[in-house]
Amino acid sequence: MMENKLKPITSPPSKEEVMNRIEKVRSMMKKENLDYYVCYNPINVYYLTNFAFYVHERPFLLIIPLKKEPIMLIPKLERGHFEQRAIGDFKIVDYYEFPAKIGDNWHDHFQGLIENNSNVGVEPEMPMLIFQKTPGRKKIIDIVGEARIIKTDYEIGRCVHSCKVANRGHKVLLKTCRPKVLEFVIYKEVTNAMITKIIKDIPNANFIVTQVACMILPPSVSHDPHLIPQIFQEMEKGGPHVSGVSSRVDGYGVEVERTFFLGNIPENAKKPFDVMMKARELAYNMLKPGVIFSEIDIEVRKFITKNGYGKNIIHRTGHGLGITGHEPPYVAEGYERKVEPGMLISIEPGIYIPGVGGFRHSDTVLITDEGYIKLTKAPEELDELIIQI
Amino acid sequence: MMENKLKPITSPPSKEEVMNRIEKVRSMMKKENLDYYVCYNPINVYYLTNFAFYVHERPFLLIIPLKKEPIMLIPKLERGHFEQRAIGDFKIVDYYEFPAKIGDNWHDHFQGLIENNSNVGVEPEMPMLIFQKTPGRKKIIDIVGEARIIKTDYEIGRCVHSCKVANRGHKVLLKTCRPKVLEFVIYKEVTNAMITKIIKDIPNANFIVTQVACMILPPSVSHDPHLIPQIFQEMEKGGPHVSGVSSRVDGYGVEVERTFFLGNIPENAKKPFDVMMKARELAYNMLKPGVIFSEIDIEVRKFITKNGYGKNIIHRTGHGLGITGHEPPYVAEGYERKVEPGMLISIEPGIYIPGVGGFRHSDTVLITDEGYIKLTKAPEELDELIIQI
Repeated sequence: MMENKLKPITSPPSKEEVMNRIEKVRSMMKKENLDYYVCYNPINVYYLTNFAFYVHERPFLLIIPLKKEPIMLIPKLERGHFEQRAIGDFKIVDYYEFPAKIGDNWHDHFQGLIENNSNVGVEPEMPMLIFQKTPGRKKIIDIVGEARIIKTDYEIGRCVHSCKVANRGHKVLLKTCRPKVLEFVIYKEVTNAMITKIIKDIPNANFIVTQVACMILPPSVSHDPHLIPQIFQEMEKGGPHVSGVSSRVDGYGVEVERTFFLGNIPENAKKPFDVMMKARELAYNMLKPGVIFSEIDIEVRKFITKNGYGKNIIHRTGHGLGITGHEPPYVAEGYERKVEPGMLISIEPGIYIPGVGGFRHSDTVLITDEGYIKLTKAPEELDELIIQI
Repeated sequence: MMENKLKPITSPPSKEEVMNRIEKVRSMMKKENLDYYVCYNPINVYYLTNFAFYVHERPFLLIIPLKKEPIMLIPKLERGHFEQRAIGDFKIVDYYEFPAKIGDNWHDHFQGLIENNSNVGVEPEMPMLIFQKTPGRKKIIDIVGEARIIKTDYEIGRCVHSCKVANRGHKVLLKTCRPKVLEFVIYKEVTNAMITKIIKDIPNANFIVTQVACMILPPSVSHDPHLIPQIFQEMEKGGPHVSGVSSRVDGYGVEVERTFFLGNIPENAKKPFDVMMKARELAYNMLKPGVIFSEIDIEVRKFITKNGYGKNIIHRTGHGLGITGHEPPYVAEGYERKVEPGMLISIEPGIYIPGVGGFRHSDTVLITDEGYIKLTKAPEELDELIIQI
């Protein structure tokens, strides 16, 4: 995979791209001897149709027969919306409403779309309610999740563009973040900059699958990485501040995160910052096709533990990204899969010390034939991350 | 229920409020002879803990034993976040990561928290993956969904406040919407006004459960109510324009929607507007405790059909609101439940005519002992909805 393949893409997928994804699913169905695969998860439906929707109580089901045309079962109300956004050839079956009188319900139609004596694959995340109404001999198997793990060239181009949006957001974040500035002010500046770029680059972006977010945890709370900051939280002198910028641009989600300091780095933050940076380097050094994901996480944890911060590890080394900002593969103990070209992951070992703060950089990284390429760009070294105030 | 009970509430729930909800669940568990109830749905977990979270792949499970303290099973990474936001007494069990090595996974802990010979209720929406790992004799039953249908005084007060936010948004919408103005400009003005009110009224609002949205479908597309408008969609002269404003304010979701005209009402829009208004009146006239929800929808559909627009009905008369903006009860054929005081619903019969446009008003309405009270306020009559340009 060459650097020159990494051109940002902002156009919708071609019909061929979408149909190839469905073929990928079908070839996996064949191996599993399945006649049908049923998707409920809106993420999987979007991946295979380009149609995004809000799920409330009305089910939307994509039924993929091994040979015939895929079928989209939707509420009548959404027919026009599906026709507007879907790419590819689908048979549309619509139902009256949710609920409806007997004979008009979604499941009354669903029963007729799959023969009872067929083999039907369903998603592990399928709700019980839908599973119970699914006809056929059912087998729970994550075929679409599996298909999504290796990115196509098109998907990579979309993620490259999404990373450019995130990079821009992070640049604004580092410019705006000063002592006493409120969380909310930075949030507004950063997300405005990102949204402006998105609508400039993709005027018809689908906002159901477009979200931008930013947060900064100042040193008093940055030891707790999943806190939702208070709106009026003030930025502080010193550090570590931990930033998080994520962009999901017209369906493609990535992230970039940094540990930084305003004016000066406190003495007790120097060692954990350094250990985090070395743990990160260790992870990157191991990152090439063939290595087992769990091995990276185990080595990273060993290194951090050896340096005295074992009890300050509270999460794995990384996770996959793509149609969502959080998906397989996982750079985690217990995930025994090999790294392969075309995977897109975050690398983000972290150290969290109450009373001192959090230490974590995260980048969105593409696995290549030779190793990896970081798609997000932001300052990485300590001297660039002590910001003059 | 008296009007003077309808004071807006902006404070977090008391411990008593949250514990009463859990007791309500327990009393239903008792009737069903359940020893445990397990919640996976983040909405239900929020309702019973005040803790909101983003679900990616790491499960968060709330386990309610009939007698002992409720248990929250969470990833280690989220412990601080849970402690920050949860209200009430919970036993916290945290797990290593997702995935993890054998013995450290979420399901390894889960197995130990419920005895195998006990009766366990689970949500209909529970994913297969979680269901399969749930110990005990399982029964699928929507206990928390049921508990949420009748609102407490506290919840009503929160929804009253959320309606004030939506009302304000809709006022800005009607002021901003003029021919040639772009969808995106109106969206920004309206959502800014709403967010400003929210952070003024609730400076520590939890933004995981706070979302504001606004859309206007101009006449060329308003016949298709679930289209996602293009960002650069222009507003048009005439009408019908159909607006939608929804606010979910620190956990409580409502909506207000109107059909309106810029400058003039086209001749062919007069009759459908009038029929929609009369269908709406019919629904309101029927709306009192004791009536069956389906009967309202059937009468409304009959009336619209009698007036020539039967084929232009594409959705039910209304839906419930509360912790979400879409939930039971449903004002729909096939929903055979009685209207009861304390329910919160939308009333929104609609007519959609390609080439003419859409016709729908929606309000958030509280059922009282005597009938109902509209909690949202916006112009309703035609003369107020032909806006001078």
